[in-house]
Amino acid sequence: MSAGLPVIIIPAVKSKSNQTVASVGELALLERLTARLPSRGDVIIGAGDDCAVVRGARADRFDYLLKSDSCVEGVHFTARAGGEWVGHKALGRVLSDIAAMGGEPLWALVDLVAPPQTPVKKIEKIYTGFNKLARQSGMAVVGGDVSAGRDLQLHVFGVGRVERGGAVLRSGARPGDAIFVTGFFGGSRAGKHLDFQPRLQEGQWLARGKWATAMIDVSDGLLRDLGHICASSGIGARLMLDAIPVSESARQGAEGKSALKSALNDGEDYELLFTVPNDKTRAFLKAWRRMFRLSCVQIGRMTSRNGKLEGISSKGIKIILQEGGYEHFQ
Amino acid sequence: MSAGLPVIIIPAVKSKSNQTVASVGELALLERLTARLPSRGDVIIGAGDDCAVVRGARADRFDYLLKSDSCVEGVHFTARAGGEWVGHKALGRVLSDIAAMGGEPLWALVDLVAPPQTPVKKIEKIYTGFNKLARQSGMAVVGGDVSAGRDLQLHVFGVGRVERGGAVLRSGARPGDAIFVTGFFGGSRAGKHLDFQPRLQEGQWLARGKWATAMIDVSDGLLRDLGHICASSGIGARLMLDAIPVSESARQGAEGKSALKSALNDGEDYELLFTVPNDKTRAFLKAWRRMFRLSCVQIGRMTSRNGKLEGISSKGIKIILQEGGYEHFQ
Repeated sequence: MSAGLPVIIIPAVKSKSNQTVASVGELALLERLTARLPSRGDVIIGAGDDCAVVRGARADRFDYLLKSDSCVEGVHFTARAGGEWVGHKALGRVLSDIAAMGGEPLWALVDLVAPPQTPVKKIEKIYTGFNKLARQSGMAVVGGDVSAGRDLQLHVFGVGRVERGGAVLRSGARPGDAIFVTGFFGGSRAGKHLDFQPRLQEGQWLARGKWATAMIDVSDGLLRDLGHICASSGIGARLMLDAIPVSESARQGAEGKSALKSALNDGEDYELLFTVPNDKTRAFLKAWRRMFRLSCVQIGRMTSRNGKLEGISSKGIKIILQEGGYEHFQ
Repeated sequence: MSAGLPVIIIPAVKSKSNQTVASVGELALLERLTARLPSRGDVIIGAGDDCAVVRGARADRFDYLLKSDSCVEGVHFTARAGGEWVGHKALGRVLSDIAAMGGEPLWALVDLVAPPQTPVKKIEKIYTGFNKLARQSGMAVVGGDVSAGRDLQLHVFGVGRVERGGAVLRSGARPGDAIFVTGFFGGSRAGKHLDFQPRLQEGQWLARGKWATAMIDVSDGLLRDLGHICASSGIGARLMLDAIPVSESARQGAEGKSALKSALNDGEDYELLFTVPNDKTRAFLKAWRRMFRLSCVQIGRMTSRNGKLEGISSKGIKIILQEGGYEHFQ
């Protein structure tokens, strides 16, 4: 579930007869389809955040997080990817979204679609990777379906929970909040897009300690996902480009400007991007370092300039995002 | 989620290297894959019933039902099927499973996969049908995903709820219980496989009144689904063949024996099949007729003969089910 950047307003009108999925684009189509969905009073957050947030019975001390995610051969993994990693990624994508709301994973279901000639060994390896990550994460796998189809696909449905009212949304950032990220960015295609650890403990700790005002996991790309926080919160952001933690594989794949570009845009980093009130940043970093060994650095600050994303470096480089999400270096 | 009939015990060993999805079969593969899933203490029923049943916080008066179901072009609908009906069926399949546990539908997510050249109008019609049935059923649609792929597919995830401990399982039938069905059977390909009403109100009423000891929705076929109740309950069943309510379209498509065969085997009837203790049947039918206009008739009785399915008619016709679920008339 992603939003364009800047916010693309799509009128809920009938489509022109010649439009196809390809000509409209998947993200724009998704936004159009989710514009007017049936709702209920117990839906706290519907489509458009990392997970939906729903409320159980009155006495329940938890809210529930609901998420579905696709993992399709040729889009999210290649035919050469090891089966265990495919299963790991399919569940990991959902867990990363649960982590980004501060949630604890509970239950999963998985629909598998496979061409009839697929070796059973490959399917079993996929389930091995899937179940291993489920066990590590304390999640039960409670069902699913198997269908024949032309593409190898997994559709994973995950349920998590947070303390009632405690989900960290994309919409809670305020001007002046410091922007933090875990880990390193860019070059995920070298392997990390399969071999990543959803930041569940970190996300839960950030939510419980009420450190994060807004949070998202970086799947679309650092800039695009920061754009989602800006759009949902109705504000802007300024990045200190020299502070962006660029991964080794991004550095090896490119140099200078293009390594940074890779870190800002590649996506599938599955790290947490979140905001912390400015007056809490020192206490936050101290507490973080007592809890975790994982790298966590400030990369910028939220601004009041609605929808504007700026990048500032010591050399005066400035980034402006344009419609469609492509960036231009000036 | 279905089980073979009679119970096929599949050892959780490594597959032979030359096995494929096609050679093993989807149902057997699903059973093998779901044999040893990670679980948790709050999972009441995992894979293998109409829905999984999970338990929320201690003070919650509800249990939650979780279900995923695929709806694939070429398997569950043809390219000629109207878009609204495709959406209706995709959600209806999940609602029918929630109904068969006695559940109230709450929240749904849907993953859509579509070839790039699919007209947006077709996708919008699918969502129109989907959302219309969601609204009618009081269900919120809280998210999902859109991906490119070679087949048009919907993967629907649904959450429902029942009073704590009140889910009607497949495993609760006892020898002597009367077997009832709603509606009419057979010939679903003439249209009813798309145009059906999930029996939500009826299922909820059967669960709340504690009338049903076991329940299932008929998707695989009346005999196969009765076989699932037998297998889960560890008992057998005897059908009065003359009592099977054969649909008009089954009668038009065939005559005599083959119309009955169609009613017993076609599947996708999306009616309820359930058992009621013998001493309650009169009170049950009286109460049913006060509540509903929908046809509900007794078609047989559970027996103590584990795994045996017999069919008795006035002409002495007998049915025996063999491994793989194919029936033989003798």
